[in-house]
Amino acid sequence: MTEHASSALLTDRYELTMLQGALRSGAAHRRAVFEMFARRLPESRRYGVVAGTGRLLEALRDFRFGTAELDYLSDAGVVDEPTLDWLADYRFTGDVWGYGEGECYFPGSPILVVEGTFAEAVLLETLALSVYNHDTAIASAASRMAVAAQGRPMIEMGSRRTHEGAATASARAAYIAGFASTSNLEAGRRWGVPTAGTSAHAFTLLHDSERHAFQAQLDALGPGTTLLVDTYDVARAVGTAVELAGTGLGGVRVDSGDLAAEAARVRTQLDGLGASDARIVVTGDLDEYAIQALAIAPVDGYGVGTALVTGSGAPTASLVYKLVARSREAAPDAPLEPVAKRSVGKPSKGGRKWASRTLDEDGTATAELVHTHEPEPRPGLRPLLRRLVEGGEVVGAEPLDAARKRHARSVAELPAAARRMSRGEPALPTEFPGRP
Amino acid sequence: MTEHASSALLTDRYELTMLQGALRSGAAHRRAVFEMFARRLPESRRYGVVAGTGRLLEALRDFRFGTAELDYLSDAGVVDEPTLDWLADYRFTGDVWGYGEGECYFPGSPILVVEGTFAEAVLLETLALSVYNHDTAIASAASRMAVAAQGRPMIEMGSRRTHEGAATASARAAYIAGFASTSNLEAGRRWGVPTAGTSAHAFTLLHDSERHAFQAQLDALGPGTTLLVDTYDVARAVGTAVELAGTGLGGVRVDSGDLAAEAARVRTQLDGLGASDARIVVTGDLDEYAIQALAIAPVDGYGVGTALVTGSGAPTASLVYKLVARSREAAPDAPLEPVAKRSVGKPSKGGRKWASRTLDEDGTATAELVHTHEPEPRPGLRPLLRRLVEGGEVVGAEPLDAARKRHARSVAELPAAARRMSRGEPALPTEFPGRP
Repeated sequence: MTEHASSALLTDRYELTMLQGALRSGAAHRRAVFEMFARRLPESRRYGVVAGTGRLLEALRDFRFGTAELDYLSDAGVVDEPTLDWLADYRFTGDVWGYGEGECYFPGSPILVVEGTFAEAVLLETLALSVYNHDTAIASAASRMAVAAQGRPMIEMGSRRTHEGAATASARAAYIAGFASTSNLEAGRRWGVPTAGTSAHAFTLLHDSERHAFQAQLDALGPGTTLLVDTYDVARAVGTAVELAGTGLGGVRVDSGDLAAEAARVRTQLDGLGASDARIVVTGDLDEYAIQALAIAPVDGYGVGTALVTGSGAPTASLVYKLVARSREAAPDAPLEPVAKRSVGKPSKGGRKWASRTLDEDGTATAELVHTHEPEPRPGLRPLLRRLVEGGEVVGAEPLDAARKRHARSVAELPAAARRMSRGEPALPTEFPGRP
Repeated sequence: MTEHASSALLTDRYELTMLQGALRSGAAHRRAVFEMFARRLPESRRYGVVAGTGRLLEALRDFRFGTAELDYLSDAGVVDEPTLDWLADYRFTGDVWGYGEGECYFPGSPILVVEGTFAEAVLLETLALSVYNHDTAIASAASRMAVAAQGRPMIEMGSRRTHEGAATASARAAYIAGFASTSNLEAGRRWGVPTAGTSAHAFTLLHDSERHAFQAQLDALGPGTTLLVDTYDVARAVGTAVELAGTGLGGVRVDSGDLAAEAARVRTQLDGLGASDARIVVTGDLDEYAIQALAIAPVDGYGVGTALVTGSGAPTASLVYKLVARSREAAPDAPLEPVAKRSVGKPSKGGRKWASRTLDEDGTATAELVHTHEPEPRPGLRPLLRRLVEGGEVVGAEPLDAARKRHARSVAELPAAARRMSRGEPALPTEFPGRP
């Protein structure tokens, strides 16, 4: 990696020039509340999945302006000396609340709420949006694929189709949303995502024959490995695989052709050879629709690449980070006033928000409520905001499996229509109680 | 950044388990040639733009298995001890050729050729594809936008809509393909991409009035700054801007509404106020089609975000990295034999390739030739492969501006049809002389 150790320059120039302007005017130290939300879901999606929370909390720790960053900003003339001095001492000392990672969200859900001075909160805008827009887009696509797979395990194997940093983050987001494993080793090292893999056509082509290649893989990885059987002739390859590995063969992978038909033929052949426990993994430009179409085929697992890492048609979640309230005085206890840009067709959403989900007697979600005050706890009302950062200290970090479990619960709680692949409206209405 | 300093785990698990299998069989040390190419361009695109070359050469330098990487691979049981020992000593000692960064490419163009032992060349597959698939997708979209902008400057401002690492790489790729600048500061620090920016609605909302906000920005950045004029009422904001900044106002930004109509009204107003040199920058979900539609509007610059960083409908370039030849002996001078997977509908492309572009008497490109032998130099034949790595040493690094200039030349050399926005076939045919 040639990445730099600080995350502070992963940001837009205007965040720093606005800081300079606000330091000059004195407004930099006013209290401010920024909220991240989506005005709409990607076309025809029924729900979105929050992801990136854990990565943002990691990046926040490294959001410091060190010598390398300050020297660049000075040499490039981005900001003036007083601003550089302010940046040198910068650390975020405010509060952050957010939806738990893995939680489902809807249009208008305030998935991240950042409160601090304007200066310290505005600096996080670009980085927070980058992390959430990417990871949320991937998790939202992955969740639909997991629904389509109906419990069959999926391997995320899209690393080669996206930026190398995005690849690692995609593996993490996919795992949160229900994938069983990833091919990406850095995601394994960094976050403990389980890793998996089979082999490539190059491995077969390297050897003098498919038989030599299979023997080499079996010698190295044992009979429990998964052999790639579509380099030349699938039926002959399956025969060779069982001949060499025995009936304890772990599995085979088919990467081309009519996957449903191939899987059926291979299953029959494997069973006929006594390898009934050998698993069939299929790969090859799968998306949620292709996975759903394979539901009745004898497939034991899916490998998903391109469609996953490109968000299956929605490569960004279109989340925005908006100033919704600020004080007129630069004091920690100054009263907040709602603010909002004049927007045609966009209802004003000024003011700090709280959010909760209403559930019916069966525990099925019925609506997303976005409140302007913290609501009284009551049965059937599940609060959605968790405290992530308190006075600059990260308090909301959690193991990745917590997000994965939260997602499974959250998607199971939605009405059945949410889990249809067909195009449709958001599965829950977003309501703003008390608004005119 | 929480990135790790080595790039070696930004890869798929199967690259390492194939290595283990090939070390066991002895085939790991056979000579091998891998080629990167696209079977097709994204739907209806007329050309693609190679990008990522410089980033891959940077990443290659850091592709080492250190203690952290080896400990993870050992603890997670990814590979066995002999393989770990081999990895500990790994460095790429082979040769790499590639299209110059910024060069246009077509289906079948061998944009990267990696020759070494199978072991050392297979390990680079995932990382090389990640870098090229991302950067090439972005540069290919950016080039079309630059064509549509007809020389008007464009600012890349999509960082917030994509992964934070992809954001920095996108800024670099967009600059190669003709953007004038980026909002991304890390791209400025790392590669010297010029940075630019205006301000956000939050800055206006923070202050007690738009007038206060404009004054703060002018105080901090001088009258040459660009003021955002669509927070409340555009006409009133433009009036305030000139009143405060004088006729030397640098520019205004309009981010919403009917941009062509707004630009015309603002231009008339600015001219009427004597601010004829004030520039009008428009932003707001622009893509190449919207930019083209604004060609007759009095616009001085475009800010482009989401469409750029998502590849304007093609977020990955679908490049593949295929073994095309290998020796049967593990010796540096062993003869190479072409290899290829049996593929229905995909013509076999086994064997090492060379590539050149034919030009007519006017210097207009007429075809992409992919040869199986290095062609004799002749007038009207422009060789496309540059040597990037020789015996493991990077020899093809170049300043970013070299790629930018190469792209400008390459796209200008294409036939006029290449620069149409409408859907069409690739602008050049790819021919394989000497193939049956």
